[in-house]
Amino acid sequence: MKQEKLPTPLRGIVPPMVTPLLSNDALDVNGLEKLIEHILGGGVHGLFILGTTGEAPNLSYHLRHELVKRTCEQVAGRVPVLVGITDTVVSESLRLANTAAEAGAAAVVSAPPYYFTPSQDELVHYYKHLADRLPLPLFLYNMPSHTKVSFAPATVKAIAKHPNVVGLKDSSGNTVYFQLMCNALKDNPDFSLLIGPEEVTAEAVLMGGHGGVNGGANLFPQLYVDLYEAALTKDFELIGTLQNHVLEISSHLYTVSSCGTSYLKGVKAALSVLGICSDFMAEPHQSYQAEEKLKIRGYLKEIKSNMQGQYQSTVNL
Amino acid sequence: MKQEKLPTPLRGIVPPMVTPLLSNDALDVNGLEKLIEHILGGGVHGLFILGTTGEAPNLSYHLRHELVKRTCEQVAGRVPVLVGITDTVVSESLRLANTAAEAGAAAVVSAPPYYFTPSQDELVHYYKHLADRLPLPLFLYNMPSHTKVSFAPATVKAIAKHPNVVGLKDSSGNTVYFQLMCNALKDNPDFSLLIGPEEVTAEAVLMGGHGGVNGGANLFPQLYVDLYEAALTKDFELIGTLQNHVLEISSHLYTVSSCGTSYLKGVKAALSVLGICSDFMAEPHQSYQAEEKLKIRGYLKEIKSNMQGQYQSTVNL
Amino acid sequence: MKQEKLPTPLRGIVPPMVTPLLSNDALDVNGLEKLIEHILGGGVHGLFILGTTGEAPNLSYHLRHELVKRTCEQVAGRVPVLVGITDTVVSESLRLANTAAEAGAAAVVSAPPYYFTPSQDELVHYYKHLADRLPLPLFLYNMPSHTKVSFAPATVKAIAKHPNVVGLKDSSGNTVYFQLMCNALKDNPDFSLLIGPEEVTAEAVLMGGHGGVNGGANLFPQLYVDLYEAALTKDFELIGTLQNHVLEISSHLYTVSSCGTSYLKGVKAALSVLGICSDFMAEPHQSYQAEEKLKIRGYLKEIKSNMQGQYQSTVNL
Amino acid sequence: MKQEKLPTPLRGIVPPMVTPLLSNDALDVNGLEKLIEHILGGGVHGLFILGTTGEAPNLSYHLRHELVKRTCEQVAGRVPVLVGITDTVVSESLRLANTAAEAGAAAVVSAPPYYFTPSQDELVHYYKHLADRLPLPLFLYNMPSHTKVSFAPATVKAIAKHPNVVGLKDSSGNTVYFQLMCNALKDNPDFSLLIGPEEVTAEAVLMGGHGGVNGGANLFPQLYVDLYEAALTKDFELIGTLQNHVLEISSHLYTVSSCGTSYLKGVKAALSVLGICSDFMAEPHQSYQAEEKLKIRGYLKEIKSNMQGQYQSTVNL
Repeated sequence: MKQEKLPTPLRGIVPPMVTPLLSNDALDVNGLEKLIEHILGGGVHGLFILGTTGEAPNLSYHLRHELVKRTCEQVAGRVPVLVGITDTVVSESLRLANTAAEAGAAAVVSAPPYYFTPSQDELVHYYKHLADRLPLPLFLYNMPSHTKVSFAPATVKAIAKHPNVVGLKDSSGNTVYFQLMCNALKDNPDFSLLIGPEEVTAEAVLMGGHGGVNGGANLFPQLYVDLYEAALTKDFELIGTLQNHVLEISSHLYTVSSCGTSYLKGVKAALSVLGICSDFMAEPHQSYQAEEKLKIRGYLKEIKSNMQGQYQSTVNL
Repeated sequence: MKQEKLPTPLRGIVPPMVTPLLSNDALDVNGLEKLIEHILGGGVHGLFILGTTGEAPNLSYHLRHELVKRTCEQVAGRVPVLVGITDTVVSESLRLANTAAEAGAAAVVSAPPYYFTPSQDELVHYYKHLADRLPLPLFLYNMPSHTKVSFAPATVKAIAKHPNVVGLKDSSGNTVYFQLMCNALKDNPDFSLLIGPEEVTAEAVLMGGHGGVNGGANLFPQLYVDLYEAALTKDFELIGTLQNHVLEISSHLYTVSSCGTSYLKGVKAALSVLGICSDFMAEPHQSYQAEEKLKIRGYLKEIKSNMQGQYQSTVNL
Repeated sequence: MKQEKLPTPLRGIVPPMVTPLLSNDALDVNGLEKLIEHILGGGVHGLFILGTTGEAPNLSYHLRHELVKRTCEQVAGRVPVLVGITDTVVSESLRLANTAAEAGAAAVVSAPPYYFTPSQDELVHYYKHLADRLPLPLFLYNMPSHTKVSFAPATVKAIAKHPNVVGLKDSSGNTVYFQLMCNALKDNPDFSLLIGPEEVTAEAVLMGGHGGVNGGANLFPQLYVDLYEAALTKDFELIGTLQNHVLEISSHLYTVSSCGTSYLKGVKAALSVLGICSDFMAEPHQSYQAEEKLKIRGYLKEIKSNMQGQYQSTVNL
Repeated sequence: MKQEKLPTPLRGIVPPMVTPLLSNDALDVNGLEKLIEHILGGGVHGLFILGTTGEAPNLSYHLRHELVKRTCEQVAGRVPVLVGITDTVVSESLRLANTAAEAGAAAVVSAPPYYFTPSQDELVHYYKHLADRLPLPLFLYNMPSHTKVSFAPATVKAIAKHPNVVGLKDSSGNTVYFQLMCNALKDNPDFSLLIGPEEVTAEAVLMGGHGGVNGGANLFPQLYVDLYEAALTKDFELIGTLQNHVLEISSHLYTVSSCGTSYLKGVKAALSVLGICSDFMAEPHQSYQAEEKLKIRGYLKEIKSNMQGQYQSTVNL
């Protein structure tokens, strides 16, 4: 077991990896290997598994634990692995965290328990108590569209006092919130503020955020790394070019259907079209059918043509 | 193992039982026994465990399975036991259903997987596939405030064609929806339409609904049974009196705090004040403190005084 | 000017009249006359103009004032006329109320100002101050789907102390709320509790509500009056038959499109198909086109055939 | 009448001016004059009246028309004046637009009619028809928290083909949306994309947006102008300093109460504390009382002390 020490604050692109599946209960082991190598080949700064993009809530526990082990083994310390432990059952969160620690992961990530809606006080209490028991550093995960609750700035400030709490991933899409969070935590320079939506990663980094947890980096990891670095070095010409690619990906690949999971289905279908891994989705979700995958193929072709030879995968479309 | 055959349609009061806990990971076994006897003593028509009121999503799996076994053993076939199998992981739903079948439960109950929001098509597909694999009849559970999705009438109609699907519990509070559902399913007289909120059980039964899954029946089971029967026999004088009690319970016991779980905290605190079981709540929730429990005690006293000796528990307040 | 004294509490069916329009800025005067006579011919207990169904917020002020005058003149004291004065500008609410009083209307109806979302305290203050200045009794109008705020029971209780405040129309569709409101106001027997959605009028009346403000009564006024009376006399066989008609109307006529105003467009289109008035809608809304109107015609035919000669209009479909 | 020609695209800081009021129906004429001079003294690039911050929906029409005239007269062509014409009644929108044109305003601004929720198709139709009849160029105004609808990117693209439509002000706070909008309109370089929330103006400008419609510029106009210019010239050290001030203002002045209008009340109270104009608010809103104003005073003092002599108003706190 080799573990990459977690930088404080964690910076850069930390892709939220999809979970390659063969069936509802079996990993696509080959696909997983290819996907990890594909993503790491892009120069990313970490890897986040078992998040929303990883369909974690719909995966059986043995599969989640297996994924943690296989991923950590494959990554082999090249980058820090972050493991999602979000669950409505706290003991399952802890069990996953222990597996993560044993496997050599660098940190865990938790969104609020998501059936009931906890109060802000309950969030503070829950996370302090959770952090006490965790074998790894903890990132909070703000995902109000799925959990129905947003961490208030004062709540994060209170939880962040715990030495085991090292960062926040904000997937709200509301950068007013992200800016207010940056302000609330400005006295805590080791606290990592990462942003979910790739469309606003550049601006978040320009304004002091530490990086992005961007789903599109499953497909084109180097694109997002380059955009992050362009933002870091304030190379606005390059930002302009790369941001265009990112917005084309988002506008086309993630909107093929109008359902609430069109983003996730789009990423999985595109990975399958690119020959990287299976696009099977765990119940209750249905993968895209042939018609939608044809559209995805068309958009991928166009996007790659716009990229003029950059960020190519090996597959001909 | 003795199993009560499930009536078609299931009618009457089927209390959604709270889960008595000593700690986050241990049942209050004595409390459970007392609670079951207390509820069954009220003449209820069934018992629903592991629903929202049962805090199911926050209970560890071994505890859920233990609760199923202990409850079925204690009930011993006196009434049908319905077991909630709602989960984001379908294999855990199936595992719980199997335990329920082995323990002698009469049916299972499932709300949609609740982190992602499935489309109506995905709900149809998910539930048909689930029902194929279930060892027991299935009730759908509509709970949009927690799951973010409502079963459309056409969706229920489509799923209800499956021979294993026997009813719907609607906890939306929107009786326009319930009436439209009654209309959509009027050609299916064996399909049971149960309503969650106790404040509208009487009217739902008057208008053709089959019964209520009412949280207050943890506290005063006979009150809800009497109200159900008064609605069935259209005894409006009695409905008037009993509905007043029900509304007093709802107005006072369930609104002691303004948090989203004040109903649940109120029921648990009241059960503890009544000496029936512990009010410990699983993480991330916090039970009421002394101050709020004092208010609960005061309201209980008032409510019981209004009941003039009816529906008494044995405890002096 | 002849004015019908307002009964306390107001009881029965008070249809929320659509506003027949020839253009964005002109009433369909003939249609208005026919519509009023059609509705009054059904034996209704009042007439509510300039509500949501009346498209009030989209009508120019001269047209609203003209509608008040023409309606009161045509009704000529046969039933109480209630006039919606909901507006974001309080002086316009007052101006409308004065026109209503001069024209002989019996009461005014007001939903909260609806761009900003007032707090409960602001609602209390606003309505007490408004009621002080009104020349007519006031009904509160709860319509959270459009105004983004619901009157809390305590808020209604506080406002209802004002002698000018005589009732509440609840269009939330949430009958738990309606029941809690009945309980909160049980010491105020002159306060009228009316329900908006026709699908739940029967049960609301059975449980102590005073009547319904039902949009379908534009189309089949006597049906809703008969249902109200059946509920009042607890004639459950008749309730069953009539409720079926009501649910068929709701399930089919109001769902022809999936837009947020499909109810309103359905009622207007059906009135036009029935030859009663124009289906023109004020900006920004678009009336149904030929294709949707054909569907409406088909449903109307089926609904009328189910009614077996009852509730016929004079038009052959 | 002197009119400033509207630049295409409009760029810079265009403060959404509060409306100084003496009573529900009377402008604070002196306050208005002082406020306009205060704002223009900060070097702003335009002035937007009768928006959300201007409480437009709650102002009587004569007052809105008077405000347009007085403001244009006072501004006297120094900067372009933009006039909000948002209304549920289209004829009132047109009447305001005509007054604006006569008074010398440069453009009008419109959010969707806000009681009913129009479909995207209806938005396209409504705005094309509106733009046909307007005497001035039109800015769309995206304000989903108040209007319950967001302009889809395709909707804006369709409306933007109309030659009279010159820009969009986005107040959603969702910069993912803003970025997707920038992408959707990248072939239309004359179309102005302005952002509402001041917390994200810097990043929006860095990423290609044209400027900010920032409420805080009522208080400290030059701060927002300097921040805009720092973003334009990519002076990141200055951006860092100024953004801190902006976030302090937002974190403290706009959160004194928890009601939905705490931002607006905070701005008005601060203007009154600064001696610039009255903080009276139109019904149904209530201005802050002494206690909250004391807090505002304290925060203002702190904010100004952090500014170290920059952005001072003339009042001692």
